Amino acid sequence: VKISELSTASGVSIASIKFYVREGLLDAGERVSATRSTYSDSHAQRLRLIRALIDIGGLSVSATKAVLAAIDGPDTPLSWVFGAAQYAISSDLPRAADVHGGHSLGATAVADLVERRGWTVSNENPGVATVARVLDSYAELGQHEFVALIDRYADAAEGVAAADLDAVGQRPDLEAMAETVVIGTILGDALMAGLRRIAQEHVARTLYDSAVDYPTPTRRTQEDPSEGEES
Amino acid sequence: VKISELSTASGVSIASIKFYVREGLLDAGERVSATRSTYSDSHAQRLRLIRALIDIGGLSVSATKAVLAAIDGPDTPLSWVFGAAQYAISSDLPRAADVHGGHSLGATAVADLVERRGWTVSNENPGVATVARVLDSYAELGQHEFVALIDRYADAAEGVAAADLDAVGQRPDLEAMAETVVIGTILGDALMAGLRRIAQEHVARTLYDSAVDYPTPTRRTQEDPSEGEES
Repeated sequence: VKISELSTASGVSIASIKFYVREGLLDAGERVSATRSTYSDSHAQRLRLIRALIDIGGLSVSATKAVLAAIDGPDTPLSWVFGAAQYAISSDLPRAADVHGGHSLGATAVADLVERRGWTVSNENPGVATVARVLDSYAELGQHEFVALIDRYADAAEGVAAADLDAVGQRPDLEAMAETVVIGTILGDALMAGLRRIAQEHVARTLYDSAVDYPTPTRRTQEDPSEGEES
Repeated sequence: VKISELSTASGVSIASIKFYVREGLLDAGERVSATRSTYSDSHAQRLRLIRALIDIGGLSVSATKAVLAAIDGPDTPLSWVFGAAQYAISSDLPRAADVHGGHSLGATAVADLVERRGWTVSNENPGVATVARVLDSYAELGQHEFVALIDRYADAAEGVAAADLDAVGQRPDLEAMAETVVIGTILGDALMAGLRRIAQEHVARTLYDSAVDYPTPTRRTQEDPSEGEES
């Protein structure tokens, strides 16, 4: 199809399509004349993936490029795709070694958790630093209840990871598995955050027998002008 | 203590402390002379909460202000704090009604899920729209495996929400419960994302008997200069 048709079908502007080609995210169309190129279903499929990573995964263009490169590598082992996908969405988080030199309360709690559960995890796993940092924040904020409940959160995480890997294992070949790792890792955080909010409301209603009130758009954005001048 | 001491103890600059006071996030210090105010432990505690919401929760200053207002309201019911906290970190997500008019494949799948599990959930719950949108993306990307596994993710989310509410229930009074709702909702997403990455590596190693390779900082940031010029 023509670029204008690809744009209409995908909802992505012609300028954006050209930008993705220039940045190496999307293959160029097949040139059929001096002024015209043609695009196939694989272009449309790739555009959907690019938009999902950017719009829902919240990735930057350069992070998207790194993730797509991991999918595309013909000899990329699955283990490397996992690492690349996890890193792409954790790049703003500190590495384990940066978190209080690895000796904070949170870092110790994660190490204990990993040993207690018999998990095999490398220290470069970005989750290690993330969890250590969150546990440190809970402790600093006096929220010791969450630290004590860590094994119940770990139970849930094991269930999530087992489902993630089941989805990956159902794909026909390594390239498809790599794509599923990337999409599942990046969209999966949003899925779990959403399901958690739904389940929180249900459990809160069950325990406290009261409805959860959601802000209306008006209440949500109102600011009290007496609270301080803008600066 | 003096503002300079509060700054040193908290690691927050004097300029930022003054900004938070001006914006109404932090109470002003008690004025002890024409040029000097004094700050207490409650200021230090509040500063830790503000920094956690901004640094780890990724909230904007105005979203932080809205969440703090929900905690501070003396008559704020717990149900309203829940809603406010959930909304503050979901404000960039569409509401349920915006997602394909509520009639997409994903929206139908969420409605079916909620009914199948006997969950009591209002349609304004931001999780409903989030989950619908992620499921729509999975379907558009041909990742039907994830949609078929939704109940296993829902099992995990129920476990997470039950632990969340247990933590809230252990707090001594409504104000402390409200604070725990906010902190737990906002930091809990990061906690679960981190635990999921750790558990993914463990499960991947168990299933495929191979290590997960993480990018070194060098590999992580390298770009292939042959892939296209910058624009």
